Amino acid sequence: MKNTFGNALTVTLFGESHGAYIGATLDGLAPGLTVDMDNIRRMLSLRAPRGRISTARHEEDEVQLVSGVADGVTTGTPLTLLIQNGDTKSGDYAAMKTVMRPSHADYPAQCKYHGFQDTRGGGHFSGRITAALVAAGAICHAALQEKGVFIGTHLSRCAGVEDRAFGDLKADIKRLSEKPFPALSEEAGESMQKAIAAAAAEGDSVGGVLETAVIGLPAGVGEPWFDTVEGVLAHMLFSVPAVKGVEFGDGFALADKRGSAANDAMYYENGIVTAATNHGGGIGGGITSGMPLIFRCAVKPTPSIAKEQKTVDIAKKENTVLAVKGRHDPAVVHRARAVVDAATAIALCDLLTVRFGTDFLAKKGEV
Amino acid sequence: MKNTFGNALTVTLFGESHGAYIGATLDGLAPGLTVDMDNIRRMLSLRAPRGRISTARHEEDEVQLVSGVADGVTTGTPLTLLIQNGDTKSGDYAAMKTVMRPSHADYPAQCKYHGFQDTRGGGHFSGRITAALVAAGAICHAALQEKGVFIGTHLSRCAGVEDRAFGDLKADIKRLSEKPFPALSEEAGESMQKAIAAAAAEGDSVGGVLETAVIGLPAGVGEPWFDTVEGVLAHMLFSVPAVKGVEFGDGFALADKRGSAANDAMYYENGIVTAATNHGGGIGGGITSGMPLIFRCAVKPTPSIAKEQKTVDIAKKENTVLAVKGRHDPAVVHRARAVVDAATAIALCDLLTVRFGTDFLAKKGEV
Amino acid sequence: MKNTFGNALTVTLFGESHGAYIGATLDGLAPGLTVDMDNIRRMLSLRAPRGRISTARHEEDEVQLVSGVADGVTTGTPLTLLIQNGDTKSGDYAAMKTVMRPSHADYPAQCKYHGFQDTRGGGHFSGRITAALVAAGAICHAALQEKGVFIGTHLSRCAGVEDRAFGDLKADIKRLSEKPFPALSEEAGESMQKAIAAAAAEGDSVGGVLETAVIGLPAGVGEPWFDTVEGVLAHMLFSVPAVKGVEFGDGFALADKRGSAANDAMYYENGIVTAATNHGGGIGGGITSGMPLIFRCAVKPTPSIAKEQKTVDIAKKENTVLAVKGRHDPAVVHRARAVVDAATAIALCDLLTVRFGTDFLAKKGEV
Amino acid sequence: MKNTFGNALTVTLFGESHGAYIGATLDGLAPGLTVDMDNIRRMLSLRAPRGRISTARHEEDEVQLVSGVADGVTTGTPLTLLIQNGDTKSGDYAAMKTVMRPSHADYPAQCKYHGFQDTRGGGHFSGRITAALVAAGAICHAALQEKGVFIGTHLSRCAGVEDRAFGDLKADIKRLSEKPFPALSEEAGESMQKAIAAAAAEGDSVGGVLETAVIGLPAGVGEPWFDTVEGVLAHMLFSVPAVKGVEFGDGFALADKRGSAANDAMYYENGIVTAATNHGGGIGGGITSGMPLIFRCAVKPTPSIAKEQKTVDIAKKENTVLAVKGRHDPAVVHRARAVVDAATAIALCDLLTVRFGTDFLAKKGEV
Repeated sequence: MKNTFGNALTVTLFGESHGAYIGATLDGLAPGLTVDMDNIRRMLSLRAPRGRISTARHEEDEVQLVSGVADGVTTGTPLTLLIQNGDTKSGDYAAMKTVMRPSHADYPAQCKYHGFQDTRGGGHFSGRITAALVAAGAICHAALQEKGVFIGTHLSRCAGVEDRAFGDLKADIKRLSEKPFPALSEEAGESMQKAIAAAAAEGDSVGGVLETAVIGLPAGVGEPWFDTVEGVLAHMLFSVPAVKGVEFGDGFALADKRGSAANDAMYYENGIVTAATNHGGGIGGGITSGMPLIFRCAVKPTPSIAKEQKTVDIAKKENTVLAVKGRHDPAVVHRARAVVDAATAIALCDLLTVRFGTDFLAKKGEV
Repeated sequence: MKNTFGNALTVTLFGESHGAYIGATLDGLAPGLTVDMDNIRRMLSLRAPRGRISTARHEEDEVQLVSGVADGVTTGTPLTLLIQNGDTKSGDYAAMKTVMRPSHADYPAQCKYHGFQDTRGGGHFSGRITAALVAAGAICHAALQEKGVFIGTHLSRCAGVEDRAFGDLKADIKRLSEKPFPALSEEAGESMQKAIAAAAAEGDSVGGVLETAVIGLPAGVGEPWFDTVEGVLAHMLFSVPAVKGVEFGDGFALADKRGSAANDAMYYENGIVTAATNHGGGIGGGITSGMPLIFRCAVKPTPSIAKEQKTVDIAKKENTVLAVKGRHDPAVVHRARAVVDAATAIALCDLLTVRFGTDFLAKKGEV
Repeated sequence: MKNTFGNALTVTLFGESHGAYIGATLDGLAPGLTVDMDNIRRMLSLRAPRGRISTARHEEDEVQLVSGVADGVTTGTPLTLLIQNGDTKSGDYAAMKTVMRPSHADYPAQCKYHGFQDTRGGGHFSGRITAALVAAGAICHAALQEKGVFIGTHLSRCAGVEDRAFGDLKADIKRLSEKPFPALSEEAGESMQKAIAAAAAEGDSVGGVLETAVIGLPAGVGEPWFDTVEGVLAHMLFSVPAVKGVEFGDGFALADKRGSAANDAMYYENGIVTAATNHGGGIGGGITSGMPLIFRCAVKPTPSIAKEQKTVDIAKKENTVLAVKGRHDPAVVHRARAVVDAATAIALCDLLTVRFGTDFLAKKGEV
Repeated sequence: MKNTFGNALTVTLFGESHGAYIGATLDGLAPGLTVDMDNIRRMLSLRAPRGRISTARHEEDEVQLVSGVADGVTTGTPLTLLIQNGDTKSGDYAAMKTVMRPSHADYPAQCKYHGFQDTRGGGHFSGRITAALVAAGAICHAALQEKGVFIGTHLSRCAGVEDRAFGDLKADIKRLSEKPFPALSEEAGESMQKAIAAAAAEGDSVGGVLETAVIGLPAGVGEPWFDTVEGVLAHMLFSVPAVKGVEFGDGFALADKRGSAANDAMYYENGIVTAATNHGGGIGGGITSGMPLIFRCAVKPTPSIAKEQKTVDIAKKENTVLAVKGRHDPAVVHRARAVVDAATAIALCDLLTVRFGTDFLAKKGEV
């Protein structure tokens, strides 16, 4: 299925960094969902580069809805959106066609596509493509909110600085939706941005950990084998560029706990089954439990750095050195937050559509 | 796709812990692959419970090949294997149908299947089902070895004890294939088993971290979006029961590094592109780079413990307490190693078949 | 997806004619569906060979439910069923491993599987495999009946004899469910059986046309492109062995009509939209219209005949002649009726599950 | 999978008749395939309306390649193409939003999309969408030709006129590629066009039968169950608007033959296995046999006719009459030939890619 993800609701991504357009197609959307361009713009703005800690590339990211929407609501047929690529400086990259940037996709792509891949600006591997994913995800994100499902992602760790933990999830998710830099703590956010700028000043880059909370999901979604909620979400999340690890609930920390400390004791509260703790992150046996869904993504530092690095020139078949020029982010992890939110929204809409049918997301009432 | 995984080579799992059989179907196997029953038995024995640190359930795990094999080689048509369930004591579980075991699938399954699920011995959620996955994976594992692709998994951390790091991968993978307990260091293995036994003596359980290495994979396998190697493998690995985190290369540790320390500098060695380090775990842009594939799975402690736990009785709709009786493992992480190896083998065979076609795995010569 | 069919509800077929078992796995069934072994046996009996016009092979076709059913109802997890192969006389076929039977799968299979295919009794290509499909379909067939959806297939033409046309569909479908030989007209049925016997006496075989009606389907199921109801059903129906043509509504006859004679004029009847004619066979734009679904399958004559035929010996690489020995049907078209009913039931359950979600088929009330 | 078709090579269609663009995405194409815009234009011109027997709508059909192509060759990443919709007169259709056109998708679509569908010009159901399918198929069509696989479709029957049968397939396929009206016989073509014009003069429309031949396919492609060549192709072909029947080889005529007359006797010719007849249409057991692939599609008459028809107004919930205004074709069957060629090319490229891997189509040498 390659560049398409999903079973009942699918998303397909296309485009290259320096092509005419990038875009996405959502297929399987319920008819009758509101498509709010302002909301799409808002999510894109959270992904957009900004200020001293981002690339100087200016992206307008004006989304054009090509199909699947009439009078501002989904028709139920495939929704394709386009984002025009402006401000591309292919010249910056021309020399790099044969000099492989370390820890970029350059060399694996060369092996896969035999040199036919579009290398300008990273081509189809560019983080630029995530703008289309965010725009598509914004539509799903809004549909979930209508059903009482809310998603929020904060930068729990970056450049040695820790954000505060999630507290009141509903309030924190609302807070994050309004924050350009996704730290729950103002002070931590300031420190992180300073640390990112410091790395940039040294010609270097940083990564971080993104933590996501989803509230309002019904229990009983997902499958026991293969299409587990963990498996489906991880499959999607590893498409967010630079993500190298995904963990649910306490994740890797669970490996060091004993069962008695890792289990989530259950009890009735006002006739509803709930749990005192959420080490499992809202999933048991691959299926949602009704507790908040919690997961974290490890984002590696941006591989494009100004510092000189050793690498190979595949045309000359010899070793060389490279100092990446052009416009690059010293960190993408804070911008990746919008991509994680969007990707999560799409995957969850798919899981809910598989479970409850095509019309479900458009029906009134909470999940 | 639910209980089926894969695109060009699919595996389907079926069965319940206390049904007549569990089984698996592999479809899309190249015709002409040798199916070695001894090898299947060997991989099953690595998964089988043993000694003081495992459940007392005795599983014969004799595999019956029902279809897709003639004269000891694959025919190319669907291969279904069955494993008979013997020695089941359903009585042990009878009382637990309505008392939800904390951090088990009981409650999510109840919400999904409305009470129709088979609850005896965990039903379709039982770790028992992984025997069928291991048997199916053993066939793929052997096919990969014929092509020069080798997979090995060790218990890098368990109950507070660290194993030594991977060294010479080829030698270590070979070593692991012969070790009933998957620690590279004998001493660490002994300490781990003692620690597991100590937890068991206290009515408790432990988890751990499994680290996997794959050598011999060609560069250029996987897709840039969605069907990334990380995404496909993680999708599969989260079906290994109790896995709550998956990371590739340096994984979560990458989040704390700078780009200059996280990038893998490349160079030519005897005309072949290689890298001095492998922080990326053999994958760039979602595609194999030709370096060894390295990943880790976080395995949570077994949720069934003898200690008393608070939970709910969904029939009486009231809170209750539970001390899980019956036969249970104080740890499954050491046995899960065989499941991870098998699951990895299946997912990799699928990725290779997508890339190179149906006959590829049966063709002579290295990858 | 090869030997698996379906999106939300999948069926996987496995087994060879002379292996230990043939079988099928249904995945995605709603939990709580009644599984009635008598109904499965009834549908299998309609497929079973009988009397003078069928092969002498005696098939017990006792179905064993291996998973996915507890206390007589579906659990919602994969349902695997097995049918043991008894009474196999592989010796009959031994000489035919290298002599390709004309218009059988022998030669195409040889090219695909490079000689590794199981050739005994046709192996995985044997019509025998359809017993597993019928057993799986019987479960879906019963689930549809609970929702008010009824399927019936008659032999509209065979060996030069025409059956009467469908009349009162509900009554005719009921009538067919009780008829061993699927002609609506008793006289036509008798004539057909005589004609089949006459062909058999000459060492020859016959084919025929099966016509299927489905009533009770809701309008609005199916997709405009690719997953049209026609496309999905035809994809399935061409797996019924010997089917070489599929047409919906007036099918090929529509090619010779003018629009004014081919269009189905609509009107309100008691507030319900209906149509005076049904040239479109209950589908418009790929989507159900609420009118009865009508289609026909062309079934070619059985290729195994006693008459001598010219063919090739691929071992000797020379031309040869062949008179097929062993037990063979002079016609399968009357037995294929049960396969068409079963296959249709599975495909429709998939389409309904995609549209309305996993639990739909188990919910009370008509569609 | 809805509006996406294929396993290893997928095509996704999007767009509405009166939206900004229609388009298609091909994913899974081998890198390095030539994309010849002239060839795309040529195939689009065969689909384009022309002269007295076609709609007056003027379609420029200028294709814009948005992604997946660099320097005139495929990159191996998703190829999206757009075709701008010009010359749309939505006013023509405005009154028809609630008056259902008989035998159009109007009413089924209303039931599926609850009135949210775009009804202007038929929206996503418009034959207009096939322009995108033809453009995508043209790329696959050219790739197949490079491998020695040639596809041609003629109008074997239309408005009571029969075309001559296929003769020398290679020559006939070449001939058809240059013919605006797809009759092999000039005289038959003239008669057909007159008959179409006569029907148009009476405010009526006609259908016809398209017959397709494919030469050069290797033996051994396709699957025994479900993904049979017949099943995969029919799944695709029923998406060609107005197709209501698909048959392979002698198709429905086989139902009336005896086995001795229906079987294709094989023999060696210059060391190659071939057959004296081709009743099976190049497929046995669902798998290609190496003989030419032959199939026919029944195309119903255009449902839009000027004659007055009875139908319903769903807003007023009452019966009404309708004489379809606006620009409409008295026949689409001759234009559908290009759609069938394109759809066939895509489906065959998918089947070949599944069998032989991603790079296959770009490798030099015949199949």
